[in-house]
Amino acid sequence: MNKVGKAEGEGSKAQARREQILAAAHACFLQSGFHGASMAVIAKAANMSVGHIYHYFENKEAIIAAIVEQDVQHVLSNIRSVRSAPRLYEAMIDKVVEGMDDVMDIGKTALMVEVLAEASRNPRVAELTQLSDQTPLKLLCELIAEGREERPALPEEEIRARAEVIAALFEGLQIRALRNPDLPRAAILPLMQDCIRLVLER
Amino acid sequence: MNKVGKAEGEGSKAQARREQILAAAHACFLQSGFHGASMAVIAKAANMSVGHIYHYFENKEAIIAAIVEQDVQHVLSNIRSVRSAPRLYEAMIDKVVEGMDDVMDIGKTALMVEVLAEASRNPRVAELTQLSDQTPLKLLCELIAEGREERPALPEEEIRARAEVIAALFEGLQIRALRNPDLPRAAILPLMQDCIRLVLER
Repeated sequence: MNKVGKAEGEGSKAQARREQILAAAHACFLQSGFHGASMAVIAKAANMSVGHIYHYFENKEAIIAAIVEQDVQHVLSNIRSVRSAPRLYEAMIDKVVEGMDDVMDIGKTALMVEVLAEASRNPRVAELTQLSDQTPLKLLCELIAEGREERPALPEEEIRARAEVIAALFEGLQIRALRNPDLPRAAILPLMQDCIRLVLER
Repeated sequence: MNKVGKAEGEGSKAQARREQILAAAHACFLQSGFHGASMAVIAKAANMSVGHIYHYFENKEAIIAAIVEQDVQHVLSNIRSVRSAPRLYEAMIDKVVEGMDDVMDIGKTALMVEVLAEASRNPRVAELTQLSDQTPLKLLCELIAEGREERPALPEEEIRARAEVIAALFEGLQIRALRNPDLPRAAILPLMQDCIRLVLER
């Protein structure tokens, strides 16, 4: 193996280790909450030494930040995937099916509420939840502006309000899925799509 | 004071004590999470002895249940207040202003996410969040069915889906207010109303 190959191998090994820690931490946070899940508990769940964990993550907040970042990247790639579509709004409305699949993932939502609960007593986590929200929201605003086509352009506040209502629909559905395990999914999909069409085309 | 008067006085005193405990517990849960806020901590914050707290509430879950119940009663009275309106759907759409005020209460939302986070690791709290959701949702379904007037009646699943999307809009906006302290509220209101009108009249 040449030097470059070795470095790449180490890079992907480090990446795999990081993901292993994040998956273990996710499970520990859900089981015990952030306070209950110490670095030692996370290390045990990840089958590593505590020192090894600290090699990858400075502290628990850094682990939370990395988990939130994974989620942000996933949302961003979902939003970006419609960007090249010829009719942007139609592509966004088609994408609702996939967005609904994502928000029905109870494990992900449970962690989201755990992070939001922690944010109310930990200013660093509060800052993280607010900052991590800005990039997807900004991208959504750009798509709303770009997709106007022949429609009149909108003032910035109008665009932000539309992005917020679209985000509220998906984040609200996440909460609904936690509260009600029997969501009538098939009947909800066309309502979600109609609401988003209305918000975009209004 | 006659006997009845005395009993009434004791009843309202007990009620005041219960509310004093609930307010103290609310603050403790936000500050320390459910695990961090022991009955002793709650007693101290309420300026009472621990024994006194147990006189009113069997355990921490009973306190959580009472806080959730307060919130459910508030939501129910909001939904009920439109019931006698001549045009039910119009009254529901007018009510969105008030509903938005409620969901912008960050302290209430922070406690809601704390309860939902606890639900993912405490089956009794999970049961509580699911049960407490059913009464407001059922009432909302009844209003949606009653308000059809000359429109054709809807199958039950269609009604439930509409109620879920309305609930998602409000609960989603709660989460948005936590994530983004600069919500463009005035621009969001007509979008919320239009979405709810669409969901009702579709």
